Amino acid sequence: MSDTGEASPAAIPFGDRLAAAVAARESQIVLGIDPDTTKLWPDAVEAMAESRERLVHALADAERSTGLAHGGANRDIRLQAAAAVLAHCLALLDAAGPACVAVKPQLAHFERLGFAGLLALEATVAHARAQDLLVIADAKRGDIASTATAYAQAWLGDVPTPFGRSAGLHADAMTLNPLLGADALEPFAEAAREQGAGLFVLVRTSNPGAADFFDLELADGGPLWERLARLVAGAGTPGPESGLAEICAVTGATRPEHLARMRELMPHTVFLLPGIGAQGGSVEALAPAFAPGRAGGLVSASRSIADAHAASGGPPGEAARAEAERLRAQAWAL
Amino acid sequence: MSDTGEASPAAIPFGDRLAAAVAARESQIVLGIDPDTTKLWPDAVEAMAESRERLVHALADAERSTGLAHGGANRDIRLQAAAAVLAHCLALLDAAGPACVAVKPQLAHFERLGFAGLLALEATVAHARAQDLLVIADAKRGDIASTATAYAQAWLGDVPTPFGRSAGLHADAMTLNPLLGADALEPFAEAAREQGAGLFVLVRTSNPGAADFFDLELADGGPLWERLARLVAGAGTPGPESGLAEICAVTGATRPEHLARMRELMPHTVFLLPGIGAQGGSVEALAPAFAPGRAGGLVSASRSIADAHAASGGPPGEAARAEAERLRAQAWAL
Repeated sequence: MSDTGEASPAAIPFGDRLAAAVAARESQIVLGIDPDTTKLWPDAVEAMAESRERLVHALADAERSTGLAHGGANRDIRLQAAAAVLAHCLALLDAAGPACVAVKPQLAHFERLGFAGLLALEATVAHARAQDLLVIADAKRGDIASTATAYAQAWLGDVPTPFGRSAGLHADAMTLNPLLGADALEPFAEAAREQGAGLFVLVRTSNPGAADFFDLELADGGPLWERLARLVAGAGTPGPESGLAEICAVTGATRPEHLARMRELMPHTVFLLPGIGAQGGSVEALAPAFAPGRAGGLVSASRSIADAHAASGGPPGEAARAEAERLRAQAWAL
Repeated sequence: MSDTGEASPAAIPFGDRLAAAVAARESQIVLGIDPDTTKLWPDAVEAMAESRERLVHALADAERSTGLAHGGANRDIRLQAAAAVLAHCLALLDAAGPACVAVKPQLAHFERLGFAGLLALEATVAHARAQDLLVIADAKRGDIASTATAYAQAWLGDVPTPFGRSAGLHADAMTLNPLLGADALEPFAEAAREQGAGLFVLVRTSNPGAADFFDLELADGGPLWERLARLVAGAGTPGPESGLAEICAVTGATRPEHLARMRELMPHTVFLLPGIGAQGGSVEALAPAFAPGRAGGLVSASRSIADAHAASGGPPGEAARAEAERLRAQAWAL
């Protein structure tokens, strides 16, 4: 047992858990939850108006007697916004969750609302769990080992304190940035093994600027992303049931010509494929990802689901439900 | 004005603000705040026992009437721990702050306590500001542009919401991971220009594993860290007063032989030099960092100050004060 958490006596490896969930739900779709505070679903926000007011007043009372408080007019705005974000996320989960195998909350969109945003994140995650969805914390963290240990406690494990162990988010998986090297990944890998969690390491991202560094040719041959792929392949252990490892890869789908090479370098690795929809990828180009089985490739979609009503018209929930189901059926048929 | 915050009509560039602060305080020391929940200062924790209990009860009351709450036994542990962390951080600031020009809270150590940890972070930052210390949020964030915009709002700017603008932490600077490329840095750069904030981009870190990727030789010559250094040098604009740019660099001090080359590549860049003390660096080796002036190099120290009493004996606060002052005088004499 390490400082990252209590060891489960027999934690099922992440690859096996994921493969079972994909089979049970007949879905490889990961619902990205990136709540844009300027584009929340109006009906969901409106429905929460009364509980929002109660929340603001109750916390204002609490803050008056504590030193751990952030006062001022900003607190009310932030609490209202976090409650509205939560309402939006719950409605999105209710609509699109049934077509998905996992959710991927983007932490930036919660942490920008401070403590209130983290409360909204926890409530969103609890709702996803109640739907039997796996939770992938999109954190893209990466730091020296002592700090990595703290991040692993935050999102995968528990924190030892003078008052007992404080549970972290206990996400099923999280995303990581590998720039600081193998020793900076090790505390996460240790926590993942103990908890049966997965780690999605950036191998190549889908943004235009990814070419700046991921694609740099190295003196001893190949681009940097191939070196990252080798690190990922070497760090994981294939699960006994699925053959899929707990160390997974984020592999940008805007360059589908890379996927066959990535699969060659990482035969036992789950690929998280962002870039569908809003970022311009297409589902058909992804077939090589699924070579080790259906759970070998997860298709992530965020704005294309949450904003589907902008293209299709109608209520946001219905449009999101239809788009998530369309993506699910499309990927499952590959 | 962008979505990252209200533009200050005449935001003073970060390089100039930093140079003025270094001159006024006669210090280049950055106090790293990495509260280890297993090594908090006992006297500080004890002194807060009563207010901790009040906090737990007040928030428990608040939570009963809200939907934005995280219940269970874990909440009490987490609130107690966050209040103890805050007490430790305030005592550390009171002891070591006067010898420093800035503080660098490591976000991992706060976010692992969830919403309660973020409240402790905000209260710590407010205390640092009241001491006229600059605040560098050690976040090492990096993501695609839409997410980077949200992170910039969280730590440097404001968040637009249906209820008005919600203020972020408004740190004076933050650390960034550049792996995703130039387009992923741009939302941070825009926020920094508007707010007069600084960005400390990882060029080379001080951990052993930094050699895995930062030191990789590229096909067209030089290691990856030189490419990162050129990105940093090209992205910043030297301040009119100081000649120091707002885009700064994290440059690991465990490899001092690199510093002269880094200075050659980045003549107008502020270097944040971690690795003193606990990570094995020494202050004397850092002279090249200060070529553009005293504010050209900031010396970061965390555990060597907070844990100074383990080596020197005596009360933690006195040991921390003495060690911070020793580092300050040593660096200032270079």
